[in-house]
Amino acid sequence: MSGSMLRSQQRRSLGPMSKPISFARGAPSLDIIDVDGLRASADQAFTADPAGMTAYGTSVGYIPLRQWIAEWHGVDVKQVLVTNGSMQADAFLFDALVQAGDAVIVERPTYDRTLLSLRGRGADVRMVELEPDGIDVAAVERVLAAGVRPKLAHIIPNFQNPAGYTLSLSKRERLLALAREHGFTIFEDDPYVALRFEGESLPTMLSLYGDSVVYASSFSKTVCPGIRVGYLVGPEPLIARVAKIATGTYISPSMVSQGIVYQFCRSGALERSIETVKAALGERARTLSEALRREFPDARFVDPQGGYFMWVELPRGTDVDALFDAAAERGVQFVKGSDFVLDGGEASLRLAYSGVTPEEIDEGVKRLAGAYEQIRSAPAGAAA
Amino acid sequence: MSGSMLRSQQRRSLGPMSKPISFARGAPSLDIIDVDGLRASADQAFTADPAGMTAYGTSVGYIPLRQWIAEWHGVDVKQVLVTNGSMQADAFLFDALVQAGDAVIVERPTYDRTLLSLRGRGADVRMVELEPDGIDVAAVERVLAAGVRPKLAHIIPNFQNPAGYTLSLSKRERLLALAREHGFTIFEDDPYVALRFEGESLPTMLSLYGDSVVYASSFSKTVCPGIRVGYLVGPEPLIARVAKIATGTYISPSMVSQGIVYQFCRSGALERSIETVKAALGERARTLSEALRREFPDARFVDPQGGYFMWVELPRGTDVDALFDAAAERGVQFVKGSDFVLDGGEASLRLAYSGVTPEEIDEGVKRLAGAYEQIRSAPAGAAA
Repeated sequence: MSGSMLRSQQRRSLGPMSKPISFARGAPSLDIIDVDGLRASADQAFTADPAGMTAYGTSVGYIPLRQWIAEWHGVDVKQVLVTNGSMQADAFLFDALVQAGDAVIVERPTYDRTLLSLRGRGADVRMVELEPDGIDVAAVERVLAAGVRPKLAHIIPNFQNPAGYTLSLSKRERLLALAREHGFTIFEDDPYVALRFEGESLPTMLSLYGDSVVYASSFSKTVCPGIRVGYLVGPEPLIARVAKIATGTYISPSMVSQGIVYQFCRSGALERSIETVKAALGERARTLSEALRREFPDARFVDPQGGYFMWVELPRGTDVDALFDAAAERGVQFVKGSDFVLDGGEASLRLAYSGVTPEEIDEGVKRLAGAYEQIRSAPAGAAA
Repeated sequence: MSGSMLRSQQRRSLGPMSKPISFARGAPSLDIIDVDGLRASADQAFTADPAGMTAYGTSVGYIPLRQWIAEWHGVDVKQVLVTNGSMQADAFLFDALVQAGDAVIVERPTYDRTLLSLRGRGADVRMVELEPDGIDVAAVERVLAAGVRPKLAHIIPNFQNPAGYTLSLSKRERLLALAREHGFTIFEDDPYVALRFEGESLPTMLSLYGDSVVYASSFSKTVCPGIRVGYLVGPEPLIARVAKIATGTYISPSMVSQGIVYQFCRSGALERSIETVKAALGERARTLSEALRREFPDARFVDPQGGYFMWVELPRGTDVDALFDAAAERGVQFVKGSDFVLDGGEASLRLAYSGVTPEEIDEGVKRLAGAYEQIRSAPAGAAA
């Protein structure tokens, strides 16, 4: 029996156990979402404030939730604007600040949708290498020294998407100093901040020096994504400009969604939900690290201290496109590293562990290892 | 005692009875919103489909609601995209179809936010006079004959905002023939269609010849505005393009809002809500017409057969800016006609009767008449 026939038979024999396992989507599994708490919050919201829930409201958001967010961040309420998910916040901010040709610094790798959104606006995207302790600030300095005058630096400081890395305190301070000195705004994109399951929390750049920062976050990772509630915090004049753009785009984000989130926050359900999610993510991240160490001894990765993602670098020359296809045949999905950069990234991949149970992680990594073995043996077999 | 002192005293004496009365905002009053039905629908939605409510979903919308809308309009499900309110649908559509410099035909007067949105995109806005039976189609023909090649004609066919007028069947057919002949798209913007309280329903242009039409509507007027659920229906390739823009903007609209609307629709609450709203609006419209005939014998207006709005034309030369201020002093708000046109409209105003009770309408029109008397007598007094 040829190697290829054997592999083909093995694939077929995976049939009964090959329920699809997705490491692709950065989304929580249903078992770590507090559906009962959401249902109770909805009931409470319609009872407590029927007028506020059902009227148009305004583009700054549902007033009690806006106030709650302002208190959470210790800022004036006029610095807050609630949006239909935090990607909508990004879009409004870019509409306000980024013209075609404007330079914007982003991390390399970075969130693929941000990259698409900036490129779609014709921004001059400058990728700067991301290190395990955050963006390479010395490289940012070199970009500035070369005369680039960025409008924005987009930074995902905690448990970065896709890398899972966290920006150190000293780098936060150095970035803020550069922003002050060179007059650019740091766009601190921080949806994962509440999901630290190891190590100590670091102060937000917003809290260190708010004048240079626009901050975005979301309830997608602490309540649920389908509720679509994100927000911006920034200097009052900028928020007023964004509010005007938002009014002209959709009048207001869903008051019903926001009213539910508000009741979820004030009832204590949010804190309980965060504890549930952190405990589950911590276990999932540890399971994934252990499985990778066992099955991929030549892979490089950093154990995440929070969030949803792990970035895995395979030996130079690994064909991740081929790995993607071979994994798909085994019912395993991930996102190719090349999706998160302008070029390169061919030997890396992003694994999201947020939507998979520990059992699925073990099984998924085992299948992935099978796919890896297949793509490494294939060229040798072809040459034989 | 001088006239001005007397008026001033009269204004002060209005104090105890001068609770603000707003004819300004096109929004329903809380008493005609089925809050209990919404609460029950939320409960049912989280129970019936917790996964669908809490996951990101996709930009085409919550699948069961999308299917419900497709069946409602008798179109393929791939022709439907649900949005965060129908103004967001407009924005996505304009993003897809309207470049700076593109000609777009709109009604004169038309919805102020649409006008702002088109002008913000640098569209070449061509206003064509609105008559009581809809846009002046002969004038549209003259625009086309002059060589203008519009991308879109934006039409609010039923109970138009701001005029309250309805496009006749023969004009619908003539417009469709022009669209086919000249290759432009009719943007049929139809949020009020379900709110006919008099006369017979007319077929949508979408149902008459869908190939030339993109249709938008909303649940803001039949469920409530705060839920922010609107939608587009159009040719499948266009909807696919819009879906891509929507994904890149906000991933998806609120699944929670849409899940609640879906349960509201399928439980029968929607039909009951429409009956409640129509009965109330019919009474409000009649009360407003009668009050205007009593208090404003020289005003011209058409009794609406549905919807939220009445357009009132005062004698040429009436200073509606002054009327606005004098009315505001009396605690009455409306929107000036000039907001709904590119130029002109100085002697007209829009009265929304959707958010006021019959008692408030009577009192509000009485106060408005006082303001009208004041601005008419003021110049004469000054000249004396």
